[in-house]
Amino acid sequence: MNNKVYFTPGPSELYPTVPQHMNTALQEKIGSISHRSKQFQEIFAHAVAGLRQLLQLPENYEVLFLASATEIWERAIQNTVQQESFHLVNGSFSARFFETTQELGLKAQKHEVPFSEGFDVPGITVPASAELVALIQNETSSGAAMPVAEINLFREKASSDALIYVDAVSSLPNPAFDFSKVDAVYFSVQKCFGLPAGLGVWLLNDRCIAKAEALAAQGQTIGSYHSIPAMLSKAKANQTVETPNVLDIYLLGKVVEDMNSKGVEAIREETEAKASLIYEYLEQSKTFTPAVENPQHRSPTTIVANTLVPASEVNKRLAEFDMAVGSGYGKYKETQIRIANFPAHSPEQVKALVEKLKELFE
Amino acid sequence: MNNKVYFTPGPSELYPTVPQHMNTALQEKIGSISHRSKQFQEIFAHAVAGLRQLLQLPENYEVLFLASATEIWERAIQNTVQQESFHLVNGSFSARFFETTQELGLKAQKHEVPFSEGFDVPGITVPASAELVALIQNETSSGAAMPVAEINLFREKASSDALIYVDAVSSLPNPAFDFSKVDAVYFSVQKCFGLPAGLGVWLLNDRCIAKAEALAAQGQTIGSYHSIPAMLSKAKANQTVETPNVLDIYLLGKVVEDMNSKGVEAIREETEAKASLIYEYLEQSKTFTPAVENPQHRSPTTIVANTLVPASEVNKRLAEFDMAVGSGYGKYKETQIRIANFPAHSPEQVKALVEKLKELFE
Repeated sequence: MNNKVYFTPGPSELYPTVPQHMNTALQEKIGSISHRSKQFQEIFAHAVAGLRQLLQLPENYEVLFLASATEIWERAIQNTVQQESFHLVNGSFSARFFETTQELGLKAQKHEVPFSEGFDVPGITVPASAELVALIQNETSSGAAMPVAEINLFREKASSDALIYVDAVSSLPNPAFDFSKVDAVYFSVQKCFGLPAGLGVWLLNDRCIAKAEALAAQGQTIGSYHSIPAMLSKAKANQTVETPNVLDIYLLGKVVEDMNSKGVEAIREETEAKASLIYEYLEQSKTFTPAVENPQHRSPTTIVANTLVPASEVNKRLAEFDMAVGSGYGKYKETQIRIANFPAHSPEQVKALVEKLKELFE
Repeated sequence: MNNKVYFTPGPSELYPTVPQHMNTALQEKIGSISHRSKQFQEIFAHAVAGLRQLLQLPENYEVLFLASATEIWERAIQNTVQQESFHLVNGSFSARFFETTQELGLKAQKHEVPFSEGFDVPGITVPASAELVALIQNETSSGAAMPVAEINLFREKASSDALIYVDAVSSLPNPAFDFSKVDAVYFSVQKCFGLPAGLGVWLLNDRCIAKAEALAAQGQTIGSYHSIPAMLSKAKANQTVETPNVLDIYLLGKVVEDMNSKGVEAIREETEAKASLIYEYLEQSKTFTPAVENPQHRSPTTIVANTLVPASEVNKRLAEFDMAVGSGYGKYKETQIRIANFPAHSPEQVKALVEKLKELFE
């Protein structure tokens, strides 16, 4: 029996109701049903309807299930870029999206600021040639976040045809997006939704769909089974092209239902309150300091701190008390820690972590 | 509580030990561990080592985990074909692989025989220009199979540079392949491995890897995160590029361990014995007849029968006794049934199905 509480930034703690939903799935033999059955269509529809409610998704948005957010990067470029994309980069994941465009043989431009920094949005110019503008709302590697009000400024900055993509992999459902100001938002289920990994969710509007159709009509190869039109044609019937991760789609529907019962506002308030608790501690700690200096740019869901004690040592000492935080990302592995503050982490667990950190470190 | 026994051709019955492994996974919090942790590397290595043992995979083969066999089709073309592939087609899935090449803008040729038929392999000529030869060992849609001895003839038929791919999506670990005669074999875990869907497994040799590297060196775009070199660089460290379906990789390792304990020969013998039982019944039934006429081309794992009673009616009557078979594929939805005979289906369950079919139908 593993009693550790995982404050790692994803995979992380499972949402508290997941074990019971997993048991129900076993009893109901969800792992055995056909992905072409009516039962699967209901599972698919339930997950989509729940997400629409939770995120207040407008009618002109569709919901697609892919294997990972990493896959979504590739499909986004393949399907909605002919020549050029533009990326805000301030960490490892936003850099990977930028590199994905290049790997697919297209032109990528970027506006980059140092790791751990947010952006001075008013000062950013978007090239008129950018067909896709990749915004990073929450950089999981560095803990830098972009306020929704600043995301909303990009519609005016970009050309009228440009599609605005938002990486909310490790933040949704926390940010209350104005979906009319952007064109696509994506996330992974193993972050704030507290699910086993293996599913990326792509929310995209009619403008993205029209772009993919236009590129296909012009003869551009937009992929095979996971082109936007191929996925949509099945999604309209509450199905997927391939045999998908049925269990995760089932669990997502159940967890989103639980989140809707609690209410997204309550979840957001709780997230902010827990984040304040952690940042207040980091501010007064002699061992840790918030990695992101500007409080406006600090992520409430993936909280990164510089540490004077090596991250591996921090975790070694926390392990005695059945707790784990994330190590820093890449070259910051030992000099930073990352603390996930997801809906699955109860206020009591967060309080216990902060108390323990206070006790163990100066 | 759902007590139905699923003889559907995948998703299908879970391997009998899956519920207990799933419970262990919950207790050990496998859903929460990082995909960059030592614990995950051990899970990955355990699954790969188990598969190597079960399938007697030679040293020059690597094992890659993707999201589905559908994805493997796309990655195979992207990574190992510059201009042209050649496909044996005798059903919906072999046709989809053929179409995938075309969707990716390359040339595909095919040798096609009618649905429900196997191939006259000695009479097939492989175009010298084919870089990838796609064989369909087990066509899940029609129940037609290709004997391993006939697969082994293609090395001589194809040009020396050609890569021979084998679709064993719904048959492995049943066929005892001579891996030296082919270059890549792939399968899905929701078929004969009795796992929840969401994982495709690609076994590929050094020749496939060299081809991908050569194409990349020549400037061909071979994809981004799931190019063969990108996947391999992580696989060498027992990791994946993206956050994968960790739970399914864990369960695969556990089920393969169970299969190795039983022994692959015992599993194969049991599969053949159960298949004989089903085919003997179909041969003497007045309602059902084996869809594949030539006994040499009948699949032991996905058994398809023409039915005089509509498939939906067959399932309606079986449902009263907590059993389900698959309906026919596509336009054969009502005129054929498909019976999965996977390792998860015990001899007792297969006997019970045959007895019930005898009782219910003339």
